[in-house]
Amino acid sequence: MKLSDLILEIKNKDSFLCIGLDTDINKIPKFLLNEEDPIFLFNKSIIDKTNPYCVAYKINTAFYESLGTSGWVSMKRTIDYINKNFPEIFTIADAKRGDIGNTSKMYAQTFFGNMNFDSVTINPYMGSDSVKPFLEFENKISVLLGLTSNIGALDIQLKKANKDYVFIEMIKSSMIWGNEDNMMYVVGATKPQYIEKIRKLIPSHFLLIPGVGAQGGDLNEICKYAMNDNIGILVNSSRSIIYASNDKNFAHSAANESIKLQKQMKIILSQKNELEL
Amino acid sequence: MKLSDLILEIKNKDSFLCIGLDTDINKIPKFLLNEEDPIFLFNKSIIDKTNPYCVAYKINTAFYESLGTSGWVSMKRTIDYINKNFPEIFTIADAKRGDIGNTSKMYAQTFFGNMNFDSVTINPYMGSDSVKPFLEFENKISVLLGLTSNIGALDIQLKKANKDYVFIEMIKSSMIWGNEDNMMYVVGATKPQYIEKIRKLIPSHFLLIPGVGAQGGDLNEICKYAMNDNIGILVNSSRSIIYASNDKNFAHSAANESIKLQKQMKIILSQKNELEL
Repeated sequence: MKLSDLILEIKNKDSFLCIGLDTDINKIPKFLLNEEDPIFLFNKSIIDKTNPYCVAYKINTAFYESLGTSGWVSMKRTIDYINKNFPEIFTIADAKRGDIGNTSKMYAQTFFGNMNFDSVTINPYMGSDSVKPFLEFENKISVLLGLTSNIGALDIQLKKANKDYVFIEMIKSSMIWGNEDNMMYVVGATKPQYIEKIRKLIPSHFLLIPGVGAQGGDLNEICKYAMNDNIGILVNSSRSIIYASNDKNFAHSAANESIKLQKQMKIILSQKNELEL
Repeated sequence: MKLSDLILEIKNKDSFLCIGLDTDINKIPKFLLNEEDPIFLFNKSIIDKTNPYCVAYKINTAFYESLGTSGWVSMKRTIDYINKNFPEIFTIADAKRGDIGNTSKMYAQTFFGNMNFDSVTINPYMGSDSVKPFLEFENKISVLLGLTSNIGALDIQLKKANKDYVFIEMIKSSMIWGNEDNMMYVVGATKPQYIEKIRKLIPSHFLLIPGVGAQGGDLNEICKYAMNDNIGILVNSSRSIIYASNDKNFAHSAANESIKLQKQMKIILSQKNELEL
């Protein structure tokens, strides 16, 4: 998918919501466990009910891998289902991969070639040759870690480097590897104080913003600092949507949570439009 | 496996060789492609012939994932084969994983729980909570990126941070998360000039050293700076061993390459013993 198609979809749906499919076999409704592929069935139900309100699905690969081969099968069925039935929806493999060049080439093949995701999250700590193989795929987007939402971000990313924080040096290094059409950055919603700084450095790139919901980030505050003229953000929510309830109506509850966020997003987008007129 | 068992095995075999199973469907002998699971068959042949000369196998997960579900099956069959037939050999999932706490917990489950690897490589850029879930598994070892062997290491790891390089700050931060019994560090063989510095900081931890062979690292130089009283290193070679030839005798050729390295290692170990007497 091209970035321009994603922006069009955001405008069509008045939503920049990304739903994270962090599907945990221990958290899904118990009645699904009798089925042949409970993980896929759970995802399918969530997708069928929530797709009108979101523009992206983010599949957290860890949750699938933890089940071994069967989890990998469920992940493949899920991405295939989205690609076939909702090709207008942007897909993200939240895989945090990255390795030396010849190995990263294999990871790019995994998520872009074999699985046909639109994008993949990349840990850029190993530098240019660990990211470039992903950028060689056309109409695919590499989503680099900018500043993560977790407490551990303090350990390295928020250490001071030469002239600035390590994560700023990271973004500066990476800016020349690609462009705003084939790179995005992950920026945690729990650290709004740094988003202004990031926006000065990369005004045009899309930001993928996790941490709204269970992790405590505030939507309005995020948007104030992170949006740009092209909207420029995808806000991800995982646990607070997909585990909204765990009875027979779990997918309906997930849709309701998605609608709540989408309505807030619609207001934010219309306020933004008014300001720009 | 406990670290003490690995050290015992190194002494028994006069070898600190780790063989990297970076098994690429495009590089293995063509006649294997007619078989039902060529990747596993290739690995099995390599393992059967090389196991007397090495103390560890490192499975590069990217190469398996790139084939999708079938690759994941081949990986599982390979680790199961090693665990069943050569339980004395240390196994490494070279996966470079790492994410926020609740996601890293899933990756730890993948490689330690589901697959039963002895160790997994971790990209520690996301900090403490991204590593701790791995450290909670008993008798398993977390192998953190110290300084990688690739050119991209210049982009972040070798930038100057507060008082020192980013990679040094990284190692300093991580030292308190675990200890030398449950953590190792990856240090590229292509950067011997930094190994002395690393050894001052972490004299007791084992180092996993890739980059000897195809990437150009020199074994004697590495050992001079990296070994400690407990030997303290695993030296990995992948491509130059497993692709030594691609005819019917490929596994025999791989064994010959392993023997060459093991003989050099034996000399280095005996010189070290003489010095210590």
